[in-house]
Formats: sequence, structure tokens, C-alpha cells
Amino acid sequence: MNQINTESYKGVRDFYPPDMFIQNYIFDVMKKVSESYGYVEYSASILESSDLYKAKSGEEIVNDQTYNFVDRGGREVTLRPEMTPTVARMVARSKRDLALPVRWYSIPNLFRYEQPQKGRLREHWQLNVDLFGVDGINAEVEIISIASDLMLRFGAKPQNFQILLNNRKIVNALFDYYEFSDTEKQKISKLIDKSEKIPRQVFVDSIREIVGDQTEDFVSILNSKDIDEMQSRLPSELQVEKGIEEIRHRISTLSENGIANVIFKPSLMRGFDYYTGIVFEVFDAGKENRRSLFGGGRYDDLLDIFGSEKMTAVGFGMGDVTVRDYLETYNLLPKFRPTTDLYICKLDDKHLNDVNVIAEKLRKDGVNVAIDITHKKLGDQIKSAVKQSIPYVVCIGDDEIKSGKFKLKELETGKETELSSEEIVKFIKNSKK
Amino acid sequence: MNQINTESYKGVRDFYPPDMFIQNYIFDVMKKVSESYGYVEYSASILESSDLYKAKSGEEIVNDQTYNFVDRGGREVTLRPEMTPTVARMVARSKRDLALPVRWYSIPNLFRYEQPQKGRLREHWQLNVDLFGVDGINAEVEIISIASDLMLRFGAKPQNFQILLNNRKIVNALFDYYEFSDTEKQKISKLIDKSEKIPRQVFVDSIREIVGDQTEDFVSILNSKDIDEMQSRLPSELQVEKGIEEIRHRISTLSENGIANVIFKPSLMRGFDYYTGIVFEVFDAGKENRRSLFGGGRYDDLLDIFGSEKMTAVGFGMGDVTVRDYLETYNLLPKFRPTTDLYICKLDDKHLNDVNVIAEKLRKDGVNVAIDITHKKLGDQIKSAVKQSIPYVVCIGDDEIKSGKFKLKELETGKETELSSEEIVKFIKNSKK
Repeated sequence: MNQINTESYKGVRDFYPPDMFIQNYIFDVMKKVSESYGYVEYSASILESSDLYKAKSGEEIVNDQTYNFVDRGGREVTLRPEMTPTVARMVARSKRDLALPVRWYSIPNLFRYEQPQKGRLREHWQLNVDLFGVDGINAEVEIISIASDLMLRFGAKPQNFQILLNNRKIVNALFDYYEFSDTEKQKISKLIDKSEKIPRQVFVDSIREIVGDQTEDFVSILNSKDIDEMQSRLPSELQVEKGIEEIRHRISTLSENGIANVIFKPSLMRGFDYYTGIVFEVFDAGKENRRSLFGGGRYDDLLDIFGSEKMTAVGFGMGDVTVRDYLETYNLLPKFRPTTDLYICKLDDKHLNDVNVIAEKLRKDGVNVAIDITHKKLGDQIKSAVKQSIPYVVCIGDDEIKSGKFKLKELETGKETELSSEEIVKFIKNSKK
Repeated sequence: MNQINTESYKGVRDFYPPDMFIQNYIFDVMKKVSESYGYVEYSASILESSDLYKAKSGEEIVNDQTYNFVDRGGREVTLRPEMTPTVARMVARSKRDLALPVRWYSIPNLFRYEQPQKGRLREHWQLNVDLFGVDGINAEVEIISIASDLMLRFGAKPQNFQILLNNRKIVNALFDYYEFSDTEKQKISKLIDKSEKIPRQVFVDSIREIVGDQTEDFVSILNSKDIDEMQSRLPSELQVEKGIEEIRHRISTLSENGIANVIFKPSLMRGFDYYTGIVFEVFDAGKENRRSLFGGGRYDDLLDIFGSEKMTAVGFGMGDVTVRDYLETYNLLPKFRPTTDLYICKLDDKHLNDVNVIAEKLRKDGVNVAIDITHKKLGDQIKSAVKQSIPYVVCIGDDEIKSGKFKLKELETGKETELSSEEIVKFIKNSKK
């Protein structure tokens, strides 16, 4: 028989218990913060009809960056590369039954077909928080507040991240002013999106291919340091006062709500074509690791693709890989503690029935108990608990069964405490507070 | 623009918040029970190399019942149809770092390519509980105890389910005695597996094609009512005393541990080729809905496919669709309550800043609060809370902001209680106990 490789598929991860612990910690913070704002969880399958992505993302994205296949019924299927089209589909489907505003969150896994690299894998998970049915500033302030709150609950300090803000209304008006075609718009958006990752001259030259003589003006607008500077550089014919006012208003309102690290950035695009207004991005403010962490924005027209009535929407997606990298950089990851609280070693196999009774009692009271059911020597049983990072051990033999008293050993300190089984429950519950 | 369909892909489910609530309830019970026995969570990607399934399941299964595609790197990829090969791969990969016994659980989603029907979808989730590195009865008793405990924690009564037990050692010896080829073994296993779903005569005729003259003896063994009857019918040359003794011993030990609904069933196969010893199945004992719910067994040789040293293993998988159907049948599903505790309606937009401050305080104390940030009339705001099944509402205007006293309204009863924000926290926390 051929020997099978034990590696995972390229670009995806195996989650051993210590990895799963971190993943669960990240998901738990995501859930708690989202739910605290009244968002409720939804979910869907990773399998979606490919049509869902063709409508707004264009054929190119569906073919080059996603996993697609044709099923035996002839259906084109895609492993979802993002959640927004799915949530829009679900809202469109059940629109009549939904009370507005709709506040929904999910932590789906997403797939993209590309060369794996640091921070970008073929499969990752992403918190998606979306608010449907509320136009205007209140919705945007709430969504950005949740994004900020997430960072704070993960332990980040406000000086260690920034929230960059832009308005696609201005960008879109500018694109129309320069009379770009749809293809040119997509091309330029992508160029601007990655402008900080490519050499300056390459960026300017690529822009020049589309913008021509007016490249310098165009680039200087994108490089404006603040909103006043940009306003002075914009062509005077451009009517974007409303878009500019929106930015000012959101920044001042967020500041009043205690979120002071919001910065206007005229070159912020946030990729997807479906954004229609405010876009934002949470950015790592560390000097050595300046990078985009996650972001979102307003997408008021996405439900159109389902022939549904208009439904305004704003939301964001926060990926697990990026968050984990950030928490590692700032030393904010919690230390592994398994869900198992107590390991019971037995002095002899004949004690197993009594040990089972004791364990069953502890379990009923909420203590997670593993029993060493091997035939190993006592020392090796304890070693097994140490290797699994289980915090407490008791060894049970005739004496303990007779007296009902157990020496609870904390493995990290070696400290022993003699306790009844009821006292063990209290002791362990206190240790978790 | 073509209009996109809002239906999900064939045979998979959208989880709207009330569905997600049930799903989370099911997962929560699965997690709590597994963790109480000292099992820790792991996970992996749904993408696996197709080789992983070819080794033990045979080409046919990989091709006909699974989702397969070739990626652009020429790799054959499968959406995992079951978790056991993955967990075996992960254990084989990290064997040196693992302390035995390894107790792991996961709740992966699994994919199978087949015509969707009641209880069988193209995607479902399945709790997988596996114990590695312990040979013999202790491991099997523990695994079956967890399966039984799961049913009880879901609210099932012992009389409403049975645990069927068999030993593949006997079946395998019998197959060898009749000198079946590997293909015949697979064919017969599958026939026996579905024997209760096909007409009796069709079953016997299909068996006869392989077993010939000895069909009656063979079928009578499978139909034995108890272990003594089977023993009397077995060919006397067959040396299966050990296998029979194992069954007796497990049934009596489980009974001593308070699990009395275990029944020997000589025709229990549990599909997969990799089982090597005890197999079991939890069965709905209701008269009108007799059906298999879930099951598992011992698979001591699976790590061989990775060229790894032998590692004994026993485990089971419990699917979410079957569990949900069972809980529905026995009226055991919990009533939907969203994670959102409180809906705040505001009398006027000018109150939003004050409302935000009040909500922020409640959130810090663990209350999940949604604010109505629409410009709707008060009556319509309250209707929105009702439609979302949010249990409590407060309406905030000048008076409430001045006095710091709020009328908390329970929407189900209409009962109002005047409370401070601190009292609201206590009130809502008590309501959840």
C-alpha cells in the first residue's frame, strides 16, 4: 500500500488543540462584542452558485482567485471567497419576514485560490458584521464603533491602531470626471489599493497609462494629507461637497463617542466594486508593521442583483489570520489552557469503578475530568497530564476512596491541597475566574 | 443585468438566526458533554488531498459519493466526506508530541454528493469524538458512555433510544470462513447495512448471489435474537470466543455503569471498512420512527496508511441533522431566544448620544443591547423588537435621561418594571438563569 502524506492540503491549516484554543479565543471575543451591540448570528454553506460572484465581482475574479468546479448536475459551484454576497442573498430572500434594522454577524470560513504567503492563506475565517436598512451616519458610526471595540477587547491600545476613512462617493465622482471606462475604473482601483506595496515610479507610470497628462493632478489628490488639502486640489467643477461633509461629520461624531484615532485617507479604496459610500480600514499603527488589518464600508446597491427592492447596508469583515498576527506582534495572545480541568490518575486498575463514580459527580458539577484509563505507572500517568497542560491532578487509591479526601496537585506550582470532591469543584471554579 | 437567484445551493442550508440558535444549542451540548470527559477540541480544513480517502474507502467512494476536483496545481482535492481520516492524519503527523491517551473532539462540516432527502443533506455537521492509544474495554466503555450521555443531556429518556452493539471480529472471521474476496466483503457489508431498508426477498436473493448454498445458515446467524442463539448457530470451526466474550463484557460493564439500554445486534456493520472490533449504533426506539441516529467503533489499523506505528483508536460521529430531527420528534428543541437581551427605542433622534452612553454602560455589564437607530415612530420601533423576538424593551426620552429610571417592558407578558440601569443588568441576568 502506498504511504499517505500526513501534511494538510496546501495553504490551509490543521488546528491542534493549542491552535484551536487561540482560534476559539478569537471567535469568542468576536461573538461577545458583536452580540453586545445586538447583532445575531447567522450562517450558510461554503458552497454557492458561481453566478452569485459573477454579478458584481466580474468573471476574472470568479475564475482566477476562487475555487470553482462544475458538479455532476452541471451546476457551477464556488467555494465562497467572501461572505457579503451570501448575506445579501439571504436578506433578499427573506426580506418580507425581517424587521429593520437587520443586525447580523457570522464567522464563516472563506476560500481564495492564490499562492499562500504570510497573512494570506487559501482558507481563513472572517467575522462579518452587517447592518441592513439604515441609511446615513448612525449606521456607519455604529459599525465603526464595533470595529474599534473589537480591537480594544482584544487588548489593543488606541495608539496601536488607526481607523482610516474615505468616501467612495468622492472617488467615484472623480473617476466619472476623468471619464474612465468600467474596465479602467477597476484597473485604477486595484492600482490604488496596492499603491503602497509597489515602487512609487511603477505606480505613477501605471496610472499614467490610463490618466495621461492629468496624472500629476490625479496623484496629488490621492496624496492629500488632510481633507482641506484634498478639497483645494479637487477640480472645481466636481460637486462632492456632500461626500466631503459626510467624512467630516463621521470623524467628529466618532471623536465625540470617544473614538479619536480616525484619519481621513483619500487613497483608501477597499477593493470590492460594490462599495457606494463611506469605506474604512483598521490599520496597524506600529512603526515596523504598518499594514491593513481589516475594513469595510457602505454598499447600498448590492441587493439589486437579486431584483430585490433597494436595501441600504454597511458592514465589515475581520479575518482571523490577520488578527492572530496582530495579537502575536503586540503579545496579546492568551496562554494555552485546555478545557480539561482535572486529570485523575489511578493507583491500580481495580479502582476504576470508584474513580468513574467520583469523576461522574465532578462532571455533573461542571468540572471537566479526564481519567487515565491506560495501564501505565503512576509517574507516567502524571507525565501525560503535564504534556497535555492540564492544570490539576489527583491520584486515587484505597486511601482516597475510603476517606473521600483527595490531594489536588497544581502541576505548574507543585502545590498540593487536600480537599473533598465538593471542595475540588469550588477550588477549580475559583481558579478560572 | 441578469437577476440572481436567492436560493442556496442544492442540498445545503442557510442558517437564519432562529436556525442558528438551534444549531448553536446542539453544538453547545456536544461541546459541554465532550469536554466534561476531558476531550479537547481540534479542527482542520474541509479541503483534503483525495489520496486520504482512496487508501481505505476504495476508488468508488471517492468518485461517486464525494465532491472532488483538480486544482490548478494538478492536485486532486476532496471536500471531506467524514472526519476520521483527517483526525488519523493529524494524530499520525504529531504522534511524537502527543501524550497518550489522546482525547479529541471536533464538530466539522462534511460533504457528500448525493440526492438530498430527509435526514441526508449534501452538507451536514458531525460531532466526532475519538480516543487514541487505549486498547480494550475501558476505552470502549468510555466512548459509549459519552454517546449515551449526549442523548440524556439532549433530554432523551433511556427508553427512547437503544444502543446496538456488535463486534467486527466475529463478522470478519465469518467472512473469512466463507472465503469471500475483498470485493465480496465490501458488497456484503453494504447489503447487510441496508438490509432493513430493502424488501426481505431482495436482500436474501442478493446474499445468495455471493454465498450460494449456505445462504440460509448465513442469514440465520445475522438474524440471531441474542448472543447465545448466535453462538449456537455459528460454524463450530469458527474461533470467535474472544469476540463474543468482548461483547458480553462490554454489555455487562455498561450496565454496571447505569447504561442498561445496550443490545447485541449481529447484523450491525457500520459501513466503513476501517472498523476492527466493537461497533455500536444509537437507535431511535420510538415505534413509528425506528432508525439509526449515529454510531462508531474501534479502528485500530487506520494509522497504518500513513506508515505510522500502530495506534489503537475508538470513536464515533453524531450528525446535526439526525439529532435535530430526533429532538423535533420528541419535542425537545429549545424555544428561540435571540442573544440580544434588550431593544432601546428612542423618543427623538436628539436623544441618541445619551442613549449611546446608557447602552455602552449596559454592554460593559454584559447585557446585549440593540438601539433603534432608524427614524421610525415609537410604535414601529417596538414592533421591530417584537418581530426579532427580543425579550425586553425600554423607550428613552427626556424624562428617562433626567431621572435615570427606565420602564423595562417584557414583550411576552407586557409587564413593565421601573428600574435604574444597574437594576436592569441584574433583572436581565436573573431572567436568563
